[in-house]
Amino acid sequence: MNLCIPNRPREECGVFGIYNHPEASKLTYFGLYALQHRGQESAGIVVSDGSKVREHKAMGLVPDVFNEAILSNLPGHLAVGHVRYSTTGSSLLKNAQPFTVCHKGKTLALAHNGNLINARSIRSKLENEGSIFQSTMDSEVVLHLIAKSAHKGLEEAVIDAFSLLKGAYSIILLTEDKLIAIRDPHGFRPLCLGKLNDSYVLASETCALDLIEAHYMRDVEPGEIIIIDPNGLRSIKPFPEVRPSFCIFELIYFARPDSNIFGTNVYMTRKRMGELLAEEAQIQGDFVMPFPDSGNYAAVGVAQASGIPFEIGVIRNHYVGRTFIQPSQTMRDFGVKVKLNPVRCLLKNKRVIIVEDSIIRGTTSRTRVHTIRGAGAREVHMLVSCPPHRFPCYYGIDFSNLGELIASKFSVEEIRRYLGLDSLHYLSLEGLLKSVNGEQNRFCLACFDSNYPILLEEEFSKYCLEKEKT
Amino acid sequence: MNLCIPNRPREECGVFGIYNHPEASKLTYFGLYALQHRGQESAGIVVSDGSKVREHKAMGLVPDVFNEAILSNLPGHLAVGHVRYSTTGSSLLKNAQPFTVCHKGKTLALAHNGNLINARSIRSKLENEGSIFQSTMDSEVVLHLIAKSAHKGLEEAVIDAFSLLKGAYSIILLTEDKLIAIRDPHGFRPLCLGKLNDSYVLASETCALDLIEAHYMRDVEPGEIIIIDPNGLRSIKPFPEVRPSFCIFELIYFARPDSNIFGTNVYMTRKRMGELLAEEAQIQGDFVMPFPDSGNYAAVGVAQASGIPFEIGVIRNHYVGRTFIQPSQTMRDFGVKVKLNPVRCLLKNKRVIIVEDSIIRGTTSRTRVHTIRGAGAREVHMLVSCPPHRFPCYYGIDFSNLGELIASKFSVEEIRRYLGLDSLHYLSLEGLLKSVNGEQNRFCLACFDSNYPILLEEEFSKYCLEKEKT
Amino acid sequence: MNLCIPNRPREECGVFGIYNHPEASKLTYFGLYALQHRGQESAGIVVSDGSKVREHKAMGLVPDVFNEAILSNLPGHLAVGHVRYSTTGSSLLKNAQPFTVCHKGKTLALAHNGNLINARSIRSKLENEGSIFQSTMDSEVVLHLIAKSAHKGLEEAVIDAFSLLKGAYSIILLTEDKLIAIRDPHGFRPLCLGKLNDSYVLASETCALDLIEAHYMRDVEPGEIIIIDPNGLRSIKPFPEVRPSFCIFELIYFARPDSNIFGTNVYMTRKRMGELLAEEAQIQGDFVMPFPDSGNYAAVGVAQASGIPFEIGVIRNHYVGRTFIQPSQTMRDFGVKVKLNPVRCLLKNKRVIIVEDSIIRGTTSRTRVHTIRGAGAREVHMLVSCPPHRFPCYYGIDFSNLGELIASKFSVEEIRRYLGLDSLHYLSLEGLLKSVNGEQNRFCLACFDSNYPILLEEEFSKYCLEKEKT
Amino acid sequence: MNLCIPNRPREECGVFGIYNHPEASKLTYFGLYALQHRGQESAGIVVSDGSKVREHKAMGLVPDVFNEAILSNLPGHLAVGHVRYSTTGSSLLKNAQPFTVCHKGKTLALAHNGNLINARSIRSKLENEGSIFQSTMDSEVVLHLIAKSAHKGLEEAVIDAFSLLKGAYSIILLTEDKLIAIRDPHGFRPLCLGKLNDSYVLASETCALDLIEAHYMRDVEPGEIIIIDPNGLRSIKPFPEVRPSFCIFELIYFARPDSNIFGTNVYMTRKRMGELLAEEAQIQGDFVMPFPDSGNYAAVGVAQASGIPFEIGVIRNHYVGRTFIQPSQTMRDFGVKVKLNPVRCLLKNKRVIIVEDSIIRGTTSRTRVHTIRGAGAREVHMLVSCPPHRFPCYYGIDFSNLGELIASKFSVEEIRRYLGLDSLHYLSLEGLLKSVNGEQNRFCLACFDSNYPILLEEEFSKYCLEKEKT
Repeated sequence: MNLCIPNRPREECGVFGIYNHPEASKLTYFGLYALQHRGQESAGIVVSDGSKVREHKAMGLVPDVFNEAILSNLPGHLAVGHVRYSTTGSSLLKNAQPFTVCHKGKTLALAHNGNLINARSIRSKLENEGSIFQSTMDSEVVLHLIAKSAHKGLEEAVIDAFSLLKGAYSIILLTEDKLIAIRDPHGFRPLCLGKLNDSYVLASETCALDLIEAHYMRDVEPGEIIIIDPNGLRSIKPFPEVRPSFCIFELIYFARPDSNIFGTNVYMTRKRMGELLAEEAQIQGDFVMPFPDSGNYAAVGVAQASGIPFEIGVIRNHYVGRTFIQPSQTMRDFGVKVKLNPVRCLLKNKRVIIVEDSIIRGTTSRTRVHTIRGAGAREVHMLVSCPPHRFPCYYGIDFSNLGELIASKFSVEEIRRYLGLDSLHYLSLEGLLKSVNGEQNRFCLACFDSNYPILLEEEFSKYCLEKEKT
Repeated sequence: MNLCIPNRPREECGVFGIYNHPEASKLTYFGLYALQHRGQESAGIVVSDGSKVREHKAMGLVPDVFNEAILSNLPGHLAVGHVRYSTTGSSLLKNAQPFTVCHKGKTLALAHNGNLINARSIRSKLENEGSIFQSTMDSEVVLHLIAKSAHKGLEEAVIDAFSLLKGAYSIILLTEDKLIAIRDPHGFRPLCLGKLNDSYVLASETCALDLIEAHYMRDVEPGEIIIIDPNGLRSIKPFPEVRPSFCIFELIYFARPDSNIFGTNVYMTRKRMGELLAEEAQIQGDFVMPFPDSGNYAAVGVAQASGIPFEIGVIRNHYVGRTFIQPSQTMRDFGVKVKLNPVRCLLKNKRVIIVEDSIIRGTTSRTRVHTIRGAGAREVHMLVSCPPHRFPCYYGIDFSNLGELIASKFSVEEIRRYLGLDSLHYLSLEGLLKSVNGEQNRFCLACFDSNYPILLEEEFSKYCLEKEKT
Repeated sequence: MNLCIPNRPREECGVFGIYNHPEASKLTYFGLYALQHRGQESAGIVVSDGSKVREHKAMGLVPDVFNEAILSNLPGHLAVGHVRYSTTGSSLLKNAQPFTVCHKGKTLALAHNGNLINARSIRSKLENEGSIFQSTMDSEVVLHLIAKSAHKGLEEAVIDAFSLLKGAYSIILLTEDKLIAIRDPHGFRPLCLGKLNDSYVLASETCALDLIEAHYMRDVEPGEIIIIDPNGLRSIKPFPEVRPSFCIFELIYFARPDSNIFGTNVYMTRKRMGELLAEEAQIQGDFVMPFPDSGNYAAVGVAQASGIPFEIGVIRNHYVGRTFIQPSQTMRDFGVKVKLNPVRCLLKNKRVIIVEDSIIRGTTSRTRVHTIRGAGAREVHMLVSCPPHRFPCYYGIDFSNLGELIASKFSVEEIRRYLGLDSLHYLSLEGLLKSVNGEQNRFCLACFDSNYPILLEEEFSKYCLEKEKT
Repeated sequence: MNLCIPNRPREECGVFGIYNHPEASKLTYFGLYALQHRGQESAGIVVSDGSKVREHKAMGLVPDVFNEAILSNLPGHLAVGHVRYSTTGSSLLKNAQPFTVCHKGKTLALAHNGNLINARSIRSKLENEGSIFQSTMDSEVVLHLIAKSAHKGLEEAVIDAFSLLKGAYSIILLTEDKLIAIRDPHGFRPLCLGKLNDSYVLASETCALDLIEAHYMRDVEPGEIIIIDPNGLRSIKPFPEVRPSFCIFELIYFARPDSNIFGTNVYMTRKRMGELLAEEAQIQGDFVMPFPDSGNYAAVGVAQASGIPFEIGVIRNHYVGRTFIQPSQTMRDFGVKVKLNPVRCLLKNKRVIIVEDSIIRGTTSRTRVHTIRGAGAREVHMLVSCPPHRFPCYYGIDFSNLGELIASKFSVEEIRRYLGLDSLHYLSLEGLLKSVNGEQNRFCLACFDSNYPILLEEEFSKYCLEKEKT
């Protein structure tokens, strides 16, 4: 890694905030814990007792990063937390959030989920004026912009900053005595507001409210800024309104099935995707099986709609270590089998219908198909509960670039052959939209149809193109 | 703990051995990894290169106990491994296996799954003669008995030792250049033999063979001793033959569903239990749901036989840390919810049928029912895929003693009320036997019907009675 | 701690840099290792291979912070390292050095020894302009100032920055391909330049050159800037010349006795202090003893000049752990004895002359005297190899504030009584100057005579006064 | 390592025991801490609360092996502790002490300092009778022998066991409610008895009593057994009396200088060795210097007796890590310099007299001389405060075997040349005896004169001879 060359323009993350709770850091710990699926690379909590701000962040999973002793060193009644995800090896503690900076004796902490598409050009401008950066994260630009307008007061400074910024952002800011939530006008990423007795809670998904038994109030609305301070909660909407662009992939794969986001339940939506997929595909087979856990919910829908039995064709090993020793001799499909062992007795001589939520690069699915065939299946069919992924995401989901999206280069038939399948069916775009109640206008579908809600800056798109070449 | 007072007469464990493989310790690591469900408390590997014997064992899960560096310090071509499970807090590294002892410049290492019911009286006799023990484990008695007859040669010494020992044991012994497998005449615990090219493999369950891609040859038979050394593999059967008493609970709960044990597949057997349970119970409801993962397989059977839809009513959080921070404020059902969050949207106002594999003390099931009701279910029914557990196990499954088995004191109706259910159905003993092809004579059903295959020694039964009182 | 309130205006540190060595980080490791006495709180290394910059820093001692694996992840041929010392508990990884920042795709790393006395007012000005800070360290201001002038080129930017900065600083800067050393015009802190074959080496003290077998070339001169890059080494002196103000306390206590600094050898100077002290004090006693190790060298001088035998009255325990368990029962003088056990047999009934290098707060000396008396000494006399410390240091030595300096409030006779001594003699200021060859004009003696070489800014002195009150 | 082949017949260790103190384990921690110089490889504490026995031991230094949490899990009022030293790499946790074994529901814990010379033949006999061993340590034989006679009662069993055992042993045994101290009839190793209010304390050296402020009562006498239990303290002397054979090397090097052992003070004795050495050698030079810390005390004696100034020619780096990174490039004398840097300024052109306590293999001294010459010394002389080591020790000091003792093969003149010295003087045997008051008859001098107080068994001496060949 070079400390100063931006290495990952795209991030998947989870954010959590709480105001007015005597055990703010402990509740944030549980909140992050429920949001762990949104980021497994690093975790951090920043807490304030009204005047002193303390922080702890480290690489690793929430239960590894924090323990009782660490949490007891984080006293205070307001807190913000963050989990971060990275698919690359270039992870740095430097890039872990929340970010904290000092400005005129005040602390500003920031937790960001999303992706700012004009951060690079703004950063470049700031650097020309003499600003220095501690990380390569786009999110740091936000803090610089706020500091620049700080003399107007924090609220105005925040409005100034986000008037300049474009992209996807669900952000929580913490100062010594304030919590501020900001969601971009398109509302790409989810962010909800809840209440736990006299405390306000902010979280990426409702599953975090459930765990701490907070009551769901409403979503933070696209373009809304919520300020929570000793005077209570205020909401402002300083930005011009635009059509919402909720990320459909949150519903397909990323969010937890027990969460409600974008006004709908994730589990029910995925099951509906499966039902519609069964209708579209009209597949025949001995049984339907998911690859746990992400394919589980659509598979249930497929089974119910088709009447084909649901079976658990692979057994998950729950004890897989975080760093795993590789076998030095050849063990076929080892990477799959160590986590998911096929039930040979069940698969033997059967016509198996696998349900997957999506196919990105195709390599994982290919190995899985190979494993199922190796266990004796006679036919292997695959149903995918979304359309082919043809275009990269610039709003916070770390899809591989164009070159790595298998469907950007190959037809469905070619993919079927590459995966070694007897048949392959994707859910149609119409089917997908039907599963979310046909509200096409509320969603961003750019990864399927390339209708990007925000035009990319020339500079940024050039950067992306270059990156795809390398 | 007192270092010298036996604290746990019952053990659940997994064993693995390999002979003639250049990476014996690495293969044993993978084998133990696949057997992790049989013991999560400690793990150990002892390896020999033909003359030097090395060992590593520690408290914790297999991937935490071993790493590349540790494995590379365990060179050799024959190895034995062990995972151990404990439900009590009194765990000690001292009690971790394999045990190794020195005798006349030779090493003897032992990995034991099962429970010796006359170990205490033999130990007492040995101690009167001046023998000293390093642990409180019954298994250590085996090594003393072998040493006593060592002048006759190892094979004779092993026969001598096990002629004196009663109980359940699937044991693997390692010396500098030999691997010996011993299964008790009743065959309580599983033990299988496989082949990986020119290597012989021994394992508690076939799932360990699958992972390392070894070929299943056959089970080690009840009462059989297998000796593997530079001369090849030899089998002897020195003990009088008795009726087999395979542990039925291995099939109900303990073994991995992708394993084949006692000549049958675990997954298929559990599904059959579910099917028979559905027939017996004739239950009505909106959907069937398991508590993952142990109830999954019977639930699939119930759903298929009854035609009632299968749903995933609770979402498993895969990131639960091994030591978890407790909330200090009241969070209802926290212990359940942190691992398994109910899908409220699905459960709301529904008649829910939960499938459980078994009910031991009842406390876990009670909390689960409470959680499901709290998420809005209108009715909660429970199907259990085995009969009520009324009697303790003395052959290696750590059931709580009589006083803690809820079915030893209460009727089904009383249990239903305690758990807060609308209805409760257990699989009948006949149904259970039908699910394993009616071969009643091959199984130990003592935990259901108190027909203990081995009469307990007076001394031991007295001890057990006393223990139940405290 | 509050993340944003400066908590320690004063720092003691060690810096090291190397240019053009294939194992730059390893050599820096050894250099820091030799400078460990200058800072035990945190350690860090930043290395460049000409284009990529990597860093590692953590709380702890050099051998704990680094290992082979970490160093092998720090490849490159130029490096800078830093050790930092803190007497307070408010230590933060955030404040560990070298600092690295990103500016226009370039990295700038900074290692600083000293104290900038106008950093706070400059920081305040920068913050008003919208700059944000990651730490509470004064050193961070340097980087902001350099970034502000970066468009003029690095060399000009460095000159611009240090033209604004006042105080004590021996600094090493690293960029992708350059090493820059800067020493303030007064030369408060030492900094030397050496050569190791084709590599240039920079270090706080010559003992770091000795360990890696580099050849001492010369001191970096007060007010000098040295730039080392692919074109070789250049020196500039852009600042107005002033009278040097070498810190006399480096010679008395802080530097390692085997180093040469300020043109003199530390050991020989300390021994001379002892000799002059013996002459001044004309003390009688049975033997002279140091408290190891800091009093050793003056004690040798005292013994030689007075003819009184030198003895080792206390034995040092070399195994004292870094975190030590406190006894819960009363153990008198435990803190001293656990490290230094008196030799009772030697001390019993003797007239003992203890030699100390300095007395700051008096608490440590008081306990030591108590321990010696408790071991049976009949008389206890103390010689101190410098004058009484009456005034705080603002140039990088962390003396307690005025209120904590025992000599700022009490007379020598009062101190003698407080310490429980039979007699107490300090070296006179004249004696001290004689020991450094009378070159009064080259040294800062402010802690003894309050003649501060740099006038403090109003703002800063006010801050210091306030701090003393709290 | 092979788990079962004895790898080190010789051990250096420290033992500590305490009876009737509410914080027995904490006091033992401090006691071991003071005895750390006697063993740095492993540390262990076994504690009893009168009925339950608990233990903790691990590889490493005392402050690393224990922390507050571990000690708080070791409640009880009687405890025994052990530190163990090893010069070889074959260290195993298995071999760490105290050993604990179980016998008839009772625990027996053993801490041993010394070496049993007939342990191997007894072990062999026991193994023929069927006994098995957990370690390769001779000390384990003691426990087997005690168990064999246990039916006679513990006291008789201890007498029986030690009537069979030959060699050097200072041993502390702990049971649930008893502490037993045993010192062999020759009294090779020290062991003292102290009192702390109502508690009895046992320790290898008095420095352990000093730290916890216990009062020294007397030495445990050669051949004495002390039993401390609820009835108080009893002493028996069941073995035939023999001439004492105190290990002279404890006084020369091994014990801490602030301890009193064998009725004399270690510091004063070492200083006297230096004084007599100065008289014998009549050396000329500019100054005398020790290599810290072991040479310090004799050097003080040399300086005082000769009138030659004492100087500190090398500076000790106190921050040397336990595992140290090696330089990959050539750094001359790195191993010495990293710990001890010469003061070039002092050594330059001087006639230097180095004082060493002993020369075993000569390699360390050779490097040290080289370092001193490299720093510019004109002449280098060496005084050694004991006679040449010509013969191995079989009673608990890990001297290298005959082949590695430089003085067993070479004359003083040859050694002088090998070390690169201008002159070399050893203290004569007469001088050595004079320094311990001429009480020749009380000491074992076998390493100098081969008069071994206990005849070795044929079997053992053969083993030793063989070992010397390899």
